[in-house]
Amino acid sequence: MSQEIKALQEKIANSVAALEFPQQPADLYDPIRYTLELGGKRMRPALVLMGCSLFSRDLEAAVKPALGVEMFHNFTLLHDDIMDNAPLRRNKPTVFSKWNTNVAILSGDVMFAESFRLISDAPAPVLKPVIDVFLKAAIEVCEGQQWDMDFESRSNVSIPEYLNMIRFKTAVLLGASLQIGALCGGANPKDAQLLYDFGCALGVAFQIQDDVLDVYGDPDKFGKQVGGDIISNKKTWLKLRALEKANEAQLAELTNYYSGEAFDPIEKVNAVRAIFDANDVKTEAETLMQQYLHEALDSLENVNASASVKALLEGFARELMQRQF
Amino acid sequence: MSQEIKALQEKIANSVAALEFPQQPADLYDPIRYTLELGGKRMRPALVLMGCSLFSRDLEAAVKPALGVEMFHNFTLLHDDIMDNAPLRRNKPTVFSKWNTNVAILSGDVMFAESFRLISDAPAPVLKPVIDVFLKAAIEVCEGQQWDMDFESRSNVSIPEYLNMIRFKTAVLLGASLQIGALCGGANPKDAQLLYDFGCALGVAFQIQDDVLDVYGDPDKFGKQVGGDIISNKKTWLKLRALEKANEAQLAELTNYYSGEAFDPIEKVNAVRAIFDANDVKTEAETLMQQYLHEALDSLENVNASASVKALLEGFARELMQRQF
Repeated sequence: MSQEIKALQEKIANSVAALEFPQQPADLYDPIRYTLELGGKRMRPALVLMGCSLFSRDLEAAVKPALGVEMFHNFTLLHDDIMDNAPLRRNKPTVFSKWNTNVAILSGDVMFAESFRLISDAPAPVLKPVIDVFLKAAIEVCEGQQWDMDFESRSNVSIPEYLNMIRFKTAVLLGASLQIGALCGGANPKDAQLLYDFGCALGVAFQIQDDVLDVYGDPDKFGKQVGGDIISNKKTWLKLRALEKANEAQLAELTNYYSGEAFDPIEKVNAVRAIFDANDVKTEAETLMQQYLHEALDSLENVNASASVKALLEGFARELMQRQF
Repeated sequence: MSQEIKALQEKIANSVAALEFPQQPADLYDPIRYTLELGGKRMRPALVLMGCSLFSRDLEAAVKPALGVEMFHNFTLLHDDIMDNAPLRRNKPTVFSKWNTNVAILSGDVMFAESFRLISDAPAPVLKPVIDVFLKAAIEVCEGQQWDMDFESRSNVSIPEYLNMIRFKTAVLLGASLQIGALCGGANPKDAQLLYDFGCALGVAFQIQDDVLDVYGDPDKFGKQVGGDIISNKKTWLKLRALEKANEAQLAELTNYYSGEAFDPIEKVNAVRAIFDANDVKTEAETLMQQYLHEALDSLENVNASASVKALLEGFARELMQRQF
């Protein structure tokens, strides 16, 4: 990763570490400290700062909003982990499993309030537009999570519906991060919107890649069980596309493996992956990712800003698409 | 209740009814519609409009923030009902019991986001101060809920700790409602702060009265089981004060009844109430309420605003203290 992006990420890491919360009530604030200390890629705040750097050399105006987006993202993880009954996050116990559901609900609520507080430290002239962008994305992220849960019990999810769900659940917040940063840096509304479009398209590509890595990732680098989505019967792009393309025998096999019956996990992952391979769905997914990446880069190209910072953002996007985990 | 306040409440009821939400995802938005249709006293948005009316004849600037405070209040009910495992709210099933916990978490989150959206429709010149007042109160309400839950498992809760808890959980949002309304109406910061103080003191009085009504309310008017706090061993001002004042025999009896063992509810309520009566704790609670009411009215008196609107607010406060349910 480039020196410039590393420097931005260090700035964010330091700013996150400098956030202070009261000691009491301990069950409200300890989980917030715990969550923020778990780390993560800090991709969203980096995008806020990159969005700002396209239009301004002074990134200070965007630091608090960048932290606000990161805080919001962590809030959604806290509540999602309750809803998904997830025991682990970043190889550590989730808040609801380490404490309990009530603690995870309420400390999540405070994180949401704190995220809004940080967002509302945006420069006065762009405060209202920044809030509007943030809240639109925040609500769409919740809608995406609801669609994702709805899909679990539906047998007829289409690929366009799936793409719309990941757009809401994952992509819009990446777009909003860039747009917020751009607005804080003084961008005009048109350029800020183009950056939103760039981030959204990149976010959809990122999520499709997530689906691919879950099945085809390098087990040593991936950090979680390869094939987890298959084992849990999760509807991913790969699964939905395989169901569309499978011949009769493959369809029967897929239906059986995804029936909810218990199978040996390794056997199940290998069998389903073999059907994915036979139908070329990995290649198709990679082609689709590239299409979204190009759509993203087309938007970026139209942004009226420093070519060298645009190149930085393009490099970031291309590197993201090369990740192994 | 005065004609003026009835008119404000009608304005709020109409504005709440006019709020629109998407039809889909249904599990996200149906619970929000359901919650808002349950009604309630709409006391907080009325306070926002009253705060505004002290300084401006045009209440339009305060309507959206008033709805924002009401939306926030309803969001806290949704999440509190999960945490308190409460089956009923306003005699109807709570969202988490009618749908499920995940639905109540996520639709609550969206209500919180929608409350920010409504709050941030405050007039541009006061947007930042209004947000600051709102978020300070929002975070304190969460802290109050956490203290309330912490108190359940603690045997050594003091009366000052209890008063601080109800201040956070209930009172600060009443204060913030008035302060937000005042700021939207163009009040100077000092008058807005005095109204916050008025609302906070009134809120503490209101909650102590709630504790009294729970034990001494008219069963026909109260709308829920009289003595519910006693039956559930809830630490209220009356209970904490009775524990301080009880003689040895009474203390043994209280300790027994509050031990967590199962008792006949009517027997338990009657026995505990008899000890409350023997120690005059109801009278003391009413004296304390009056002290808070006077503290509230002292703050109101110092507000530099129309005497007739101040009289309206004083009337509202005095009527609130006369309520039977």
